[in-house]
Amino acid sequence: MKRIGMLTSGGDCQALNAAMRGVVKSLIFSGEQIEIYGFLNGYQGLIYGNYRMLDVSDFSGILTRGGTILGSSRTPFKLIHEPDANGLDKVEAMKHSYYKLNLDCLVILGGNGTHKTANLLREEGLNVVTLPKTIDNDLWGTDMTFGFQSAVDIATNAIDCIHTTADSHGRVFIVEVMGHKVGYLTLNAGMAGGADIILIPEIPYDIKKIVQAIDERKKRGSKFTIIAVAEGAISKEDAKLSKKEYKKKMENYPYPSVSYEVAAEILKKTGQEVRVTVPGHTQRGGSPCPYDRVFASRLGAEAGKLILKGEYGFMVGYRNREVVKVPLEDVAGKLKKIQPDSSIIKEAKMLGISFGD
Amino acid sequence: MKRIGMLTSGGDCQALNAAMRGVVKSLIFSGEQIEIYGFLNGYQGLIYGNYRMLDVSDFSGILTRGGTILGSSRTPFKLIHEPDANGLDKVEAMKHSYYKLNLDCLVILGGNGTHKTANLLREEGLNVVTLPKTIDNDLWGTDMTFGFQSAVDIATNAIDCIHTTADSHGRVFIVEVMGHKVGYLTLNAGMAGGADIILIPEIPYDIKKIVQAIDERKKRGSKFTIIAVAEGAISKEDAKLSKKEYKKKMENYPYPSVSYEVAAEILKKTGQEVRVTVPGHTQRGGSPCPYDRVFASRLGAEAGKLILKGEYGFMVGYRNREVVKVPLEDVAGKLKKIQPDSSIIKEAKMLGISFGD
Amino acid sequence: MKRIGMLTSGGDCQALNAAMRGVVKSLIFSGEQIEIYGFLNGYQGLIYGNYRMLDVSDFSGILTRGGTILGSSRTPFKLIHEPDANGLDKVEAMKHSYYKLNLDCLVILGGNGTHKTANLLREEGLNVVTLPKTIDNDLWGTDMTFGFQSAVDIATNAIDCIHTTADSHGRVFIVEVMGHKVGYLTLNAGMAGGADIILIPEIPYDIKKIVQAIDERKKRGSKFTIIAVAEGAISKEDAKLSKKEYKKKMENYPYPSVSYEVAAEILKKTGQEVRVTVPGHTQRGGSPCPYDRVFASRLGAEAGKLILKGEYGFMVGYRNREVVKVPLEDVAGKLKKIQPDSSIIKEAKMLGISFGD
Amino acid sequence: MKRIGMLTSGGDCQALNAAMRGVVKSLIFSGEQIEIYGFLNGYQGLIYGNYRMLDVSDFSGILTRGGTILGSSRTPFKLIHEPDANGLDKVEAMKHSYYKLNLDCLVILGGNGTHKTANLLREEGLNVVTLPKTIDNDLWGTDMTFGFQSAVDIATNAIDCIHTTADSHGRVFIVEVMGHKVGYLTLNAGMAGGADIILIPEIPYDIKKIVQAIDERKKRGSKFTIIAVAEGAISKEDAKLSKKEYKKKMENYPYPSVSYEVAAEILKKTGQEVRVTVPGHTQRGGSPCPYDRVFASRLGAEAGKLILKGEYGFMVGYRNREVVKVPLEDVAGKLKKIQPDSSIIKEAKMLGISFGD
Repeated sequence: MKRIGMLTSGGDCQALNAAMRGVVKSLIFSGEQIEIYGFLNGYQGLIYGNYRMLDVSDFSGILTRGGTILGSSRTPFKLIHEPDANGLDKVEAMKHSYYKLNLDCLVILGGNGTHKTANLLREEGLNVVTLPKTIDNDLWGTDMTFGFQSAVDIATNAIDCIHTTADSHGRVFIVEVMGHKVGYLTLNAGMAGGADIILIPEIPYDIKKIVQAIDERKKRGSKFTIIAVAEGAISKEDAKLSKKEYKKKMENYPYPSVSYEVAAEILKKTGQEVRVTVPGHTQRGGSPCPYDRVFASRLGAEAGKLILKGEYGFMVGYRNREVVKVPLEDVAGKLKKIQPDSSIIKEAKMLGISFGD
Repeated sequence: MKRIGMLTSGGDCQALNAAMRGVVKSLIFSGEQIEIYGFLNGYQGLIYGNYRMLDVSDFSGILTRGGTILGSSRTPFKLIHEPDANGLDKVEAMKHSYYKLNLDCLVILGGNGTHKTANLLREEGLNVVTLPKTIDNDLWGTDMTFGFQSAVDIATNAIDCIHTTADSHGRVFIVEVMGHKVGYLTLNAGMAGGADIILIPEIPYDIKKIVQAIDERKKRGSKFTIIAVAEGAISKEDAKLSKKEYKKKMENYPYPSVSYEVAAEILKKTGQEVRVTVPGHTQRGGSPCPYDRVFASRLGAEAGKLILKGEYGFMVGYRNREVVKVPLEDVAGKLKKIQPDSSIIKEAKMLGISFGD
Repeated sequence: MKRIGMLTSGGDCQALNAAMRGVVKSLIFSGEQIEIYGFLNGYQGLIYGNYRMLDVSDFSGILTRGGTILGSSRTPFKLIHEPDANGLDKVEAMKHSYYKLNLDCLVILGGNGTHKTANLLREEGLNVVTLPKTIDNDLWGTDMTFGFQSAVDIATNAIDCIHTTADSHGRVFIVEVMGHKVGYLTLNAGMAGGADIILIPEIPYDIKKIVQAIDERKKRGSKFTIIAVAEGAISKEDAKLSKKEYKKKMENYPYPSVSYEVAAEILKKTGQEVRVTVPGHTQRGGSPCPYDRVFASRLGAEAGKLILKGEYGFMVGYRNREVVKVPLEDVAGKLKKIQPDSSIIKEAKMLGISFGD
Repeated sequence: MKRIGMLTSGGDCQALNAAMRGVVKSLIFSGEQIEIYGFLNGYQGLIYGNYRMLDVSDFSGILTRGGTILGSSRTPFKLIHEPDANGLDKVEAMKHSYYKLNLDCLVILGGNGTHKTANLLREEGLNVVTLPKTIDNDLWGTDMTFGFQSAVDIATNAIDCIHTTADSHGRVFIVEVMGHKVGYLTLNAGMAGGADIILIPEIPYDIKKIVQAIDERKKRGSKFTIIAVAEGAISKEDAKLSKKEYKKKMENYPYPSVSYEVAAEILKKTGQEVRVTVPGHTQRGGSPCPYDRVFASRLGAEAGKLILKGEYGFMVGYRNREVVKVPLEDVAGKLKKIQPDSSIIKEAKMLGISFGD
């Protein structure tokens, strides 16, 4: 008999339900008796003891469903040690929920922020198994996170749609892609959508190089240019600023996001108007793609196996096409980034894609 | 033997290629000998004699392709009588191109602005047949325009994606839908996507009613609300302003678009943060949906028939499930709008959808 | 207070859930108190009193979901007057369920067969409102049925996929499309997918004309041919057979379906191998397309209105873009078919599509 | 200056065009002068000197297009040493084409059969670089082939559609998935589509175990069962037959494919009718998914690099997330299969999926 708490934390993404279904199915088909307590809306549910008991029927038919049946919320790690408005100690409150329900372990699905808190709970003595959820693919210790490929599909689809319009009107178009502080999502959607210029945080851009790339396309007879811009893209000058200087700059930042800054700069330097499209939160939503469904199911199954063996303190990750367990202390607080000299960047450049560097 | 000029004008949309393919196929299969001159980038190509001869192979395989093989541009009607930068009389230039190539007729694909110019050319004595292209579905004289249903599909897909996120996070989300000054696109995408509140230009909104609708949903236990906002939506107060007053207000308008104003108002009145997503130009792009492909092909075929019979001066439209010809003078300068007391609005209200009125 | 029974009968299709949601939402938002009894698996549930009470939460989130939350089954009309294996009188059993639950009316969603039984129940004195569900679009009295456009989308997608393969390999391909005894689905998917030859039941085919059409394509330089064949397509010879003769022929029919017969005939006459693809039941499944979601919701809303007014004995249909009520006795037992001389057929022929006639 | 011949051979699949575009783009952006000779319809074009010169514009806009702009055909390896109908020595003819055009190398895109011939040409002294194209993912020496993930998407979509119907009608459904003699495609589509039973060639099935799995689902309250069957699936008895015995059995095989045999056996053993759906060639067609577009582009770029360096005799493959070169002699004649005791199979079983073993 295993008593398992489960929660999804941080921005939602595709395949959260698929992953939870995987955990529960693998536990049930193992023959083990289980009780599942679903904490609602991320760590909030754990802090305030807000949960509901789930049975197997709750996990039926959710393989293909986007979002999370448990709800989610962001609980910033930097506030975790601060008492809440009523003076409640959040860490103690989470431990209280855990011990009160006499749980064998917590299954936590989340991204970078979530993993910091998960590791803290591990340090506090709770049994924790985590699953790597993020469309950003920026979690250390795993080649891949679920949600990523589904988000690539949606962002690529947006670029595809813009392509026909850009071509018809001979325009420069920017599509702003999510991805937080890393460029995986933009790089992959950009390459898949045939973007001509791709701007990612790992390779700060020089606006002159962007203008040059647009001009070269014109010289070669291409009447339009598609630019995929990561929401975290940054110029070479801004990248040189200290944290303080950068913060100050952003206080008076006149643009809704970096894409609009790039568009304004191109207009200033070339007189050419640039349209900006921001697919935004659509990139987190909808049914997970088949890749993510298989991937999340596999991770879920292996998480179930760890629980059955009583092996706690791990994130279930993926390396070299195999599901692996990664110690939580190795994951928490680290960021996986694209290496500017990695093969895929070189290959993209070989295909004529400019990174504005 | 028929010598036909063809051009696509205004914002591009899905099924432009399908419609042109329909015209050309129906002419070719009639056995008539034809020559097709494709003017590039809308009326610009006609004005400056920029064209290329097309043969049947140019129309092969384009049924499913978005955009327009001829390119498009906007040529505002109000500037058509003004000479260009070099003093060129645009109307005379267009007539010159027409007569120089000894054309039997012009096939013009476009929306409202395009039809004003097309009608002018008819008044000037040119033989013109037009096809109703717009994702806005705001052309007078036809129940439907091509591009519309494809745009509904894309906007609905965006709302679907937002739905899972809104549900997971218990948030209020706005999806801003295109449609220019009418609400067809937003109404249909909103109903298809299960939006709870739909704001369209034809029904000015009262922010208090919107807040009330959100509150009522909360009372009924719904933790999230989806609002589909037409880019042309307008508040009751703004709708009362004179054109001059409204223009003045917009000069200092602090928001990127009306959706952000609605979001700000909701925040002010409820303290609840609202996320805005703007699919933007993606709504014009990508492969046409099957409905539009059939529809545009049918219209194209009937346009070919009119040309063979030498019946000019018509838009090929659609009424009561039949393709019909509509005199151009009846179409030009009019706007088709949703009637606030039409059946579909009543039905939407019966389903519990609030229009903020 | 209204007590409403509801059931879905016949082959399932997209937007059944959307339509039921529409009925329930319009009743609830009217302020009327309601009780909903969902009979399971079509008329079987009504016959055997197998139902469950539904509340508003059962209809939440199902707008986009394929299939039917009530389950469905086929109950052939010709067996309805025959007692079941245990000697049960089915008609009396259905009346018994109705009166026992003290229902105000039955809402029945189904196609042609379903409507015969629905009309019978009306004749027996029950209050009945029906909704036109079928991917075949063959219901008399309505321009459109829900499920149809979604099925067109899926069948078109199959033809699109086959198109790239046929083109790459220079082959003749048949895609067999559903549609029972009428050709709406095949005609629309065929036109949308750019099929070169379309075979529908309403226009019996001559294999020689098909071969001729393939040859003409070759002469024009097209190295492949796509044929969309309705599952109910029939040759001119077979169309002349008496019912008895036809039945006899089919007893020893060596092909899985008519598509394979056409393929075999083409092989025999031209030596050219033909590949057959049968998307089959996929055409009934998956999420309804946006068109169907809006359409089914509108019909559902108007069905709710009829119930509130106590107007029974109608199918809620659609004519000239307005939702209308159609007396059940006018619908039952009739089949809507494509007229071989209708505009759309003429237009398809103008586009060079051969119907093998 | 490089003179490059290019051909696509075997069954077409998604991303062939994307891969060729990658090769050409990487060569052009390297600054090297190139001439590209596209041989038409696979090795046939090379044998009969049927080619056309391609320029960069031929590769513009084809990233997203299915099929192959060069056409394809199957040229069985076992016939390659036999003269053709006119006594032509095919191998010599291919060499003749190569030397006559004074080619620097041949770029060959294909699957298993194609690679045998490619290796033969290498042995004959031609410079060859190959790219791994197949929806089956059965090429030795590479973790992944392009076309595979796109086919997974299509097959999964078919299972998704069947799911709603199976659920509504409480039926057993079989979806037959392609994949030739290996189970990758079926395994992944089956897991992604939530199939309950998956039959693959690598794990011969026992019909009794299948029936048992269906029964167990019924006992657990599931009213339907979805079975994903690989086209190459085989029963335990058949797997024991000698090649000769098996061939004899297949001579009088009464079923169109193995799925129908499984369906018939289930009917015989349980009385339960089983529907079979065969998406067939649709799995090879349509636009490549974003994953395949990025993947094929990367491989293409690295193929271009090998050509620039003059490194010939390799297939460009993919291992541990890096593009690698694999000696052709290591690839040819080998088959990559799923190991029955591999992690993914174990994980699928942990999720309750039966393999009928």
